[in-house]
Amino acid sequence: MTVQMNSGISVDCVVFGFDGKDLKVLLIKRKYPVEGLSAEDPKLPGAMILENETIPQAASRVLEESTGLSQIYLKQVGIFSDPDRVSPEELDWICKYHNIKTERVVTVGYYALVKLTDRIISYTLRRGASWVRVDDIHYLVMDHKKILAEALLALQKEMILSPIAFELLPKKFTISQLQNLFSAVTGIGMDNRNFRKKILSSGLLKATGEKERGVAHKPAMYYEFNRSSYKKAMKERTGLEFINNWAY
Amino acid sequence: MTVQMNSGISVDCVVFGFDGKDLKVLLIKRKYPVEGLSAEDPKLPGAMILENETIPQAASRVLEESTGLSQIYLKQVGIFSDPDRVSPEELDWICKYHNIKTERVVTVGYYALVKLTDRIISYTLRRGASWVRVDDIHYLVMDHKKILAEALLALQKEMILSPIAFELLPKKFTISQLQNLFSAVTGIGMDNRNFRKKILSSGLLKATGEKERGVAHKPAMYYEFNRSSYKKAMKERTGLEFINNWAY
Repeated sequence: MTVQMNSGISVDCVVFGFDGKDLKVLLIKRKYPVEGLSAEDPKLPGAMILENETIPQAASRVLEESTGLSQIYLKQVGIFSDPDRVSPEELDWICKYHNIKTERVVTVGYYALVKLTDRIISYTLRRGASWVRVDDIHYLVMDHKKILAEALLALQKEMILSPIAFELLPKKFTISQLQNLFSAVTGIGMDNRNFRKKILSSGLLKATGEKERGVAHKPAMYYEFNRSSYKKAMKERTGLEFINNWAY
Repeated sequence: MTVQMNSGISVDCVVFGFDGKDLKVLLIKRKYPVEGLSAEDPKLPGAMILENETIPQAASRVLEESTGLSQIYLKQVGIFSDPDRVSPEELDWICKYHNIKTERVVTVGYYALVKLTDRIISYTLRRGASWVRVDDIHYLVMDHKKILAEALLALQKEMILSPIAFELLPKKFTISQLQNLFSAVTGIGMDNRNFRKKILSSGLLKATGEKERGVAHKPAMYYEFNRSSYKKAMKERTGLEFINNWAY
């Protein structure tokens, strides 16, 4: 069976990974060169949607192809629909690469959160992709830089709302790693002592009893996310949370 | 100049209004009957996007046409891209009504917040539209009921994050009206005294000195949103808000 592509709509995915210190994004190359465009240009993983799939299904497909993972945190960032978001040369490339005919491509941006395990790193490197520090990304094809900026904003917002930070951390992590993650995502430097005090008094972390090994500094304790205490707190919501939220 | 429609993509808008007591949604009628479909079927205001406009521009156009207002709070709810979201009869109706040819329509849902002034009510009623209590909406065409449900969820979430409640309230409002709004949107019943105490101690409201007139009960004070105290609180954010948010 031949599955037709819906020629006007694509998806592009910002895959975030965290290595304990820096926030990184998965970038691929254009692969097929076209007149005036380099095959080496960095871009986000993406695809045109197929006629028989939903847009989230297309995003999951792209993610599975580019990371080898199927069950990962995936969230829509927004729709990018500027009629001129793709230059004539880029449109030409898209049409040739996908063998379609379209005057315009509207893309839906997604962001995904992955744990940067050795397995995923070697999988992505084998495919010629790379993990680049967010701060080091200066150019991406088309409007992918804009999609990345919006994804980062969405991640910041969502991290305040829900404990998705733990999607990016290993199962056991130190408080420094958690703090590094928040600083990397929000861009806000935080006082170590204050962070430690607040996060420990929240009841959201569970000490594992294990400590770092083979480090030069005083070994830090490993913690886990306390899912049951989080769920309990959620159940006790009163509908008045907005007041605290607005009134910091 | 003829502007071509992008035949595969539409926008649909959930316009929320609040009358001091109930949360309402603006509904229109299908207008043009097609074999097997009634012209009386209620639906959300919507349109196919034009080739030379972005999707948010299309949503603004729909809102301006249906409410007469241009500067209103408008936010994307999500994309509805089930290949079967539109039945063959509905697709037939869309193609005839818009004079296009397409096998599928992907729609982008938006929600808008308006103050239910006399002016907007008479404008919409003149055009045959109606404001229906959210709880009284049992059927809408296509997947519009699903779009409404998602819009309500998005509104709930956003109201916890930012003071958009004031987009729905008149400039001067009573604490009861604010509480009614939160109850209507979140579905959570709140204790009057607790609500009053918390909201007054937040510093987000400013007493106007005016009171209700001609009411049977003890006249209530009118308040305004204290925008400057909100802005000040936002500036003082530390990046640690997430801890309070998760740990209620």
